[in-house]
Amino acid sequence: MTQGPLLTFLSDYGLDDEFVGVCHGVIARRCPTARVIDITHAIPRHDIRAGALTLLGALPYMPAGVHLAVVDPEVGAVGTHARRAVAVRPAAAEHLLVGPDNGLLALALEQLGGALEAVEIGRSAERLEPVSATFHGRDIFAPVAAALAAGAPLAGLGEPLDVESLRALELPVAVVGERELRAHALHFDHFGNVTLDADHGQLAAAGLRLGGELVIERDGRSHRGRYATTFADVAPGELLLYEDARATAALAVNRGSAREALRLERDDELSVRPA
Amino acid sequence: MTQGPLLTFLSDYGLDDEFVGVCHGVIARRCPTARVIDITHAIPRHDIRAGALTLLGALPYMPAGVHLAVVDPEVGAVGTHARRAVAVRPAAAEHLLVGPDNGLLALALEQLGGALEAVEIGRSAERLEPVSATFHGRDIFAPVAAALAAGAPLAGLGEPLDVESLRALELPVAVVGERELRAHALHFDHFGNVTLDADHGQLAAAGLRLGGELVIERDGRSHRGRYATTFADVAPGELLLYEDARATAALAVNRGSAREALRLERDDELSVRPA
Amino acid sequence: MTQGPLLTFLSDYGLDDEFVGVCHGVIARRCPTARVIDITHAIPRHDIRAGALTLLGALPYMPAGVHLAVVDPEVGAVGTHARRAVAVRPAAAEHLLVGPDNGLLALALEQLGGALEAVEIGRSAERLEPVSATFHGRDIFAPVAAALAAGAPLAGLGEPLDVESLRALELPVAVVGERELRAHALHFDHFGNVTLDADHGQLAAAGLRLGGELVIERDGRSHRGRYATTFADVAPGELLLYEDARATAALAVNRGSAREALRLERDDELSVRPA
Repeated sequence: MTQGPLLTFLSDYGLDDEFVGVCHGVIARRCPTARVIDITHAIPRHDIRAGALTLLGALPYMPAGVHLAVVDPEVGAVGTHARRAVAVRPAAAEHLLVGPDNGLLALALEQLGGALEAVEIGRSAERLEPVSATFHGRDIFAPVAAALAAGAPLAGLGEPLDVESLRALELPVAVVGERELRAHALHFDHFGNVTLDADHGQLAAAGLRLGGELVIERDGRSHRGRYATTFADVAPGELLLYEDARATAALAVNRGSAREALRLERDDELSVRPA
Repeated sequence: MTQGPLLTFLSDYGLDDEFVGVCHGVIARRCPTARVIDITHAIPRHDIRAGALTLLGALPYMPAGVHLAVVDPEVGAVGTHARRAVAVRPAAAEHLLVGPDNGLLALALEQLGGALEAVEIGRSAERLEPVSATFHGRDIFAPVAAALAAGAPLAGLGEPLDVESLRALELPVAVVGERELRAHALHFDHFGNVTLDADHGQLAAAGLRLGGELVIERDGRSHRGRYATTFADVAPGELLLYEDARATAALAVNRGSAREALRLERDDELSVRPA
Repeated sequence: MTQGPLLTFLSDYGLDDEFVGVCHGVIARRCPTARVIDITHAIPRHDIRAGALTLLGALPYMPAGVHLAVVDPEVGAVGTHARRAVAVRPAAAEHLLVGPDNGLLALALEQLGGALEAVEIGRSAERLEPVSATFHGRDIFAPVAAALAAGAPLAGLGEPLDVESLRALELPVAVVGERELRAHALHFDHFGNVTLDADHGQLAAAGLRLGGELVIERDGRSHRGRYATTFADVAPGELLLYEDARATAALAVNRGSAREALRLERDDELSVRPA
């Protein structure tokens, strides 16, 4: 058999209400042959950065298709607070992205080679009338994503916009020094593991070696740990630096919370050095 | 490509157990080409009204197909407490509904033009033997819904029953007076937003104008608020009346709980007047 | 229309992260025509027995296909702690099983007639490189399951292994005495219902009759209850023995917790006798 077009869907809608199911229905009505993969709908409410990082981590494992993402704290706002709704074609042209223009799509677009073409879809002919003030996933984003999946040309789905005007996502930047990495807490999961803004190459450049002891300084306090492969490489209660499943540097405490142990809030800076 | 028949599925089973997955398996065995859209499985346990309102709100966005809904507090009861299991064809004949006859399907049936034909499926030849006392979703409802999706005629799936005998759902009814709406708390979401039994037309008939101030009286106490489009139109902590994503009047407190602010329980009456 | 191959997927990944969605993406890339039924992803973290019992209960309702199961506390461990990753063909050859060789698949394999052929897939050519230390669902299990669904022969997906060497799952065994059943607490659900290691036949052999009174002794204390069909057959607060939806004997307290009432932990033994 042949298969229909593919969409992926990420949001902060949660599964406690019918919002995700309703978007699936809207997609199925507009593009009956489409298949939808739910990346996750448990992005913390209104957490654009968490949505952007999750989309970035998931996209390399997704088939070619239309990627619908909705984390949209400004939904329904008007005037100067209004964000645009957009559909974007990146350089990796087998993918298309649909969502609010608030930074949510920025990391994925960068990964896919940057945006080549974008349209503002807030008044798209595909939208469902009347458009509600609170549920643009149903009324704007899902129908436009489904139209793209059904083969509608991007240019016909909205007003053209300058790809240079697409919102970026502000992120801290790790600095590699001499035998020191100054990194930041990008993101926390619900176990208290801490994603840093650094990758394997930056750890190596800072003189950190897999298996080696290290010292983390944070807010005037020192913590000892180990650069390890997996949690079981350190004793319970001990701190480890590791490469997580997204190939990003992360901190954890075996059977504990690195976030609590290091008293970290988002964007806090810490220094990591070989011991 | 062509696509297979479509089912939607709503229940109070939750996703903590395998119940939903097992129903999907049963459907796939009986109708291998069927696609299933999960509307939601987080209806509060045994809350028939919440299930009926959610189905009502979601159906206009669903494709033609078989709609399976299971919120079934009386499952397995016998004798005078027993509810019937039913499959129903409404006037909007591209849809079919399957579920317990306890009011869960009543609002959807009304929206779809009323029931034209119904069968009692508790002893349907499609059911899975032995039928358990607790899981009719798996043993009766899913197999019958899948048989319908596969093209089996409704009349062959059970015993005919009088559509007039289908259970209605008791709901309070808002009353429009002179510059006053007497409405009721139909339903609460987990943020404390309150769905009322009124729509835009009733608000207008009661002299309420979008953007205007209003007074809500409840249990001898007065509360001031505004008839607004979205939460951001009022200050944090302030009360608003708005049209929710289902086009129903609702009350909310921006960053708070209208349910708590007004001390509301289900079916409580309140009076809304222009200020 | 024809339909594509079918996979089922059970795990302890939960839905709070993108792990399940990423595995769906990996499957769709390797086998674009595959359909995936999620049995559940809410197996308690690292609870191999709960995963094995859930898979056992769900499989009889699943279509022929590839069954992917991941509850994998030893993921990424090396040396003597390492578990194997396996793909297995049981006697019921319309099914294939993929998962860690830690007992998770054992009950399903037994139900399907035992294992006929198995391969170790930890170094399969299908795996995604680089293989992470923590997410073998994405990097090993999902791609191999998808390859099987796409028609790849089992023997080509890894190194052959002796099916006799597959890990069993240790479970307690109920003993039927003269008018007494000595059973054990196999598993608890989140309501406090207790699955026992006994079925209807063993209850009958111990002289227990549906509808009859019974005495349960546990830890020197006696509790009275009834062998009933459903919760409503006993008064609120009263204990019942019943056959659950998996056709296994279970204990419950109507509107209460049998686990708490009997102070049970996993594998605790109790004696059930006719009153």
